Amino acid sequence: MSDTLTAVEIEDVAQYMRDVGGRARAAARRIAVAEPGAKNAALLELAERIVSQRERIIAANQRDMTAGRAAGLDAALLDRLELTDARIEAMADGVRQIAGLADPVGAISDLAARPSGIQVGRMRVPLGVIGIIYESRPNVTADAAALCLKAGNAVILRGGSEAIHSNQAIAALIGESLEAAGLPATAVQVVETTDRTAVRHLLTMPEFVDVIVPRGGKGLVAFVAEHARVPVIKHLDGICHVYIDAAADADKAVAVAVNAKTQRLGTCNTLETLLIARSRAAELLPRLAQAYRDAGIELRGCEAARAIVDDMLPATDEDWATEYLDAILSIRVVDDVDAAMDHIARYSSGHTESILTEDLGTARRFIREVDSSSVMVNASTRFADGFEYGLGAEIGISTDKIHARGPVGLEGLTSQKYVVYGDGHCRY
Amino acid sequence: MSDTLTAVEIEDVAQYMRDVGGRARAAARRIAVAEPGAKNAALLELAERIVSQRERIIAANQRDMTAGRAAGLDAALLDRLELTDARIEAMADGVRQIAGLADPVGAISDLAARPSGIQVGRMRVPLGVIGIIYESRPNVTADAAALCLKAGNAVILRGGSEAIHSNQAIAALIGESLEAAGLPATAVQVVETTDRTAVRHLLTMPEFVDVIVPRGGKGLVAFVAEHARVPVIKHLDGICHVYIDAAADADKAVAVAVNAKTQRLGTCNTLETLLIARSRAAELLPRLAQAYRDAGIELRGCEAARAIVDDMLPATDEDWATEYLDAILSIRVVDDVDAAMDHIARYSSGHTESILTEDLGTARRFIREVDSSSVMVNASTRFADGFEYGLGAEIGISTDKIHARGPVGLEGLTSQKYVVYGDGHCRY
Repeated sequence: MSDTLTAVEIEDVAQYMRDVGGRARAAARRIAVAEPGAKNAALLELAERIVSQRERIIAANQRDMTAGRAAGLDAALLDRLELTDARIEAMADGVRQIAGLADPVGAISDLAARPSGIQVGRMRVPLGVIGIIYESRPNVTADAAALCLKAGNAVILRGGSEAIHSNQAIAALIGESLEAAGLPATAVQVVETTDRTAVRHLLTMPEFVDVIVPRGGKGLVAFVAEHARVPVIKHLDGICHVYIDAAADADKAVAVAVNAKTQRLGTCNTLETLLIARSRAAELLPRLAQAYRDAGIELRGCEAARAIVDDMLPATDEDWATEYLDAILSIRVVDDVDAAMDHIARYSSGHTESILTEDLGTARRFIREVDSSSVMVNASTRFADGFEYGLGAEIGISTDKIHARGPVGLEGLTSQKYVVYGDGHCRY
Repeated sequence: MSDTLTAVEIEDVAQYMRDVGGRARAAARRIAVAEPGAKNAALLELAERIVSQRERIIAANQRDMTAGRAAGLDAALLDRLELTDARIEAMADGVRQIAGLADPVGAISDLAARPSGIQVGRMRVPLGVIGIIYESRPNVTADAAALCLKAGNAVILRGGSEAIHSNQAIAALIGESLEAAGLPATAVQVVETTDRTAVRHLLTMPEFVDVIVPRGGKGLVAFVAEHARVPVIKHLDGICHVYIDAAADADKAVAVAVNAKTQRLGTCNTLETLLIARSRAAELLPRLAQAYRDAGIELRGCEAARAIVDDMLPATDEDWATEYLDAILSIRVVDDVDAAMDHIARYSSGHTESILTEDLGTARRFIREVDSSSVMVNASTRFADGFEYGLGAEIGISTDKIHARGPVGLEGLTSQKYVVYGDGHCRY
């Protein structure tokens, strides 16, 4: 792991990436069979070093900040890029939490005897080499590497070019921590060139990379999905819905619908479209509108909603298909749960939907029929999160259906192989 | 479902495939929530019709056979294409067996309360629309459709052009059976054009297709993997190994190593390279060679093996990397279990490997460290099969690590979503 804290000038990027891949593949074989104690020792060492060597991280981060200001990065991007003392503490805490999780590797489940006499079970095993492609937040370097390592995987990290020095500084600490625990430093590598073709190579090396996890905005994720020749665990939009059913409890409905939108505006599990049963609209929309107004939320409604609350803007088809990530909410009055589920089937991004109802049959239908990664009854969409679900940590939230769906923790970074025990058994 | 039993001339294949995809997506929503009883009724109806209307299937199959002979298809291909009475009975039996399996859809697992008060669990749900691309065997049409339906999925089947009439006849029976059970016939569609561009479209419609399962030779699978823009559950090679350890029991070792190669030659779980510890080679290789010779197996050995059994041909690096699917076996003498695992890491296709040993520590290391979809102790590689593992049926054997690994049954054709139950819970 280089500690030069400078992007490397590389002539042959393809060969460089193949070298990175080859080292990752070799390290993956060692990290896959590392004892839980050794992995945890490396992670606790890393947490310790992040704190004790914070000056080293901050110095590198300041280089990125200076270059970022000179390049005219906007304030939001600079904010995401900056590593403060508090953020460095949080980074170390996150790594410590991951060290404390149960080790998933090697667990055998479903072991059962078969009529032939063999015993068949499934053993949880690492995926191998995971490529993480992310944007400006340098804390992802520590978080993602720690989670992948805990699950027994090698990692290739490709962060945003604006964070290259911060990422290299953190990666150097990871490498040193791995070595201190007797594990290969090459189990975590940061791509040390800002050359954009490096990403294309990373996406197209199935011989070296088993899965890619993009973490960033829609543009990045779409690019990765389009160009990857290896499996991708990805999260596209979070167009989340709350449906207030005819049989909803008024107070719960208002509390949950307001919490889902206002508790945090810019997260993927934030409510973007509120659906409400026609029979409850006149009663509840004025209360809801008042609460949203108090929280500074702009409302855009269908015609029926605007007939009840007249200061809403009109919502268009485009509103139903938009993830605002902002202080805007679209509201639609629907006939019943079927109409709500039809709307969700058409416009949802498959992230998280919640129904407010006291009717058991309606709740069961919604839970069963809505095809999203999280489906809720009488709970805020804001709960759709690896920590809230008890995964301990998450690498992201998958809106795919294959392999991992919803918040992805250690289990999503592993696979299961079959194990078979016989005593000289042959097949006839 | 057309019953015209003739390939359709289609001008705009892209539009045709989008229409097929749109119908599949619509049908998927209905089949996903179908009652287990309705799905089973459709499958039992199908089994009954396959038998009672066998003349209809055989007539269509004869059209394919006649065209195939005229086109000069080789004997092996014509054999795979032909539907005999026995094969039709077996097809019906397979469908009946699938009807008898437990319905995976809707099962909730791991439901637990979280500190926030919400309850979080995971519900097994269908994947949605599955595209199956296969070659000449028309029985795949019934098998694959039945398994996908049982798991609550809609299916688009694209079989080999040489089997188009057989496939259409079987698909017509499936459609009629679905309708008889009150389910949408469009839940199973056979692509009714032999235009090759149809496959390209099927591989690149993520809005309509959730996963592709290619079933066929290496060329087909590689083509699908290269061009798909949706996830693929695939099986490439089966270069399977048996390693006879220093601590192997001689009789078990000979029995298993011979069974793994000779019980069936052309299957993906057949042994292709035998590894043997140097300390046991002089004792066991002559016995093994005799048994293999008796079974008509050609042996290709490393130098050390040929020094013991002198009528082996020399094995080259290419032999270690070859899936013979034939009466040929390569044999290599290795120092110990580490050398065996190094050989496997380098040459295995990640399908199935088995160790023969009575030593617990060595067995544990092999099981843990070998990175293949099935890893066995003292058992024939021929057991790597969905039926032997108790899955009831299989859509194929995955050599990928993502989503499904090893034999893929109903569970591999489903996913899990998170379900959350609250009582007005908000996040703070």
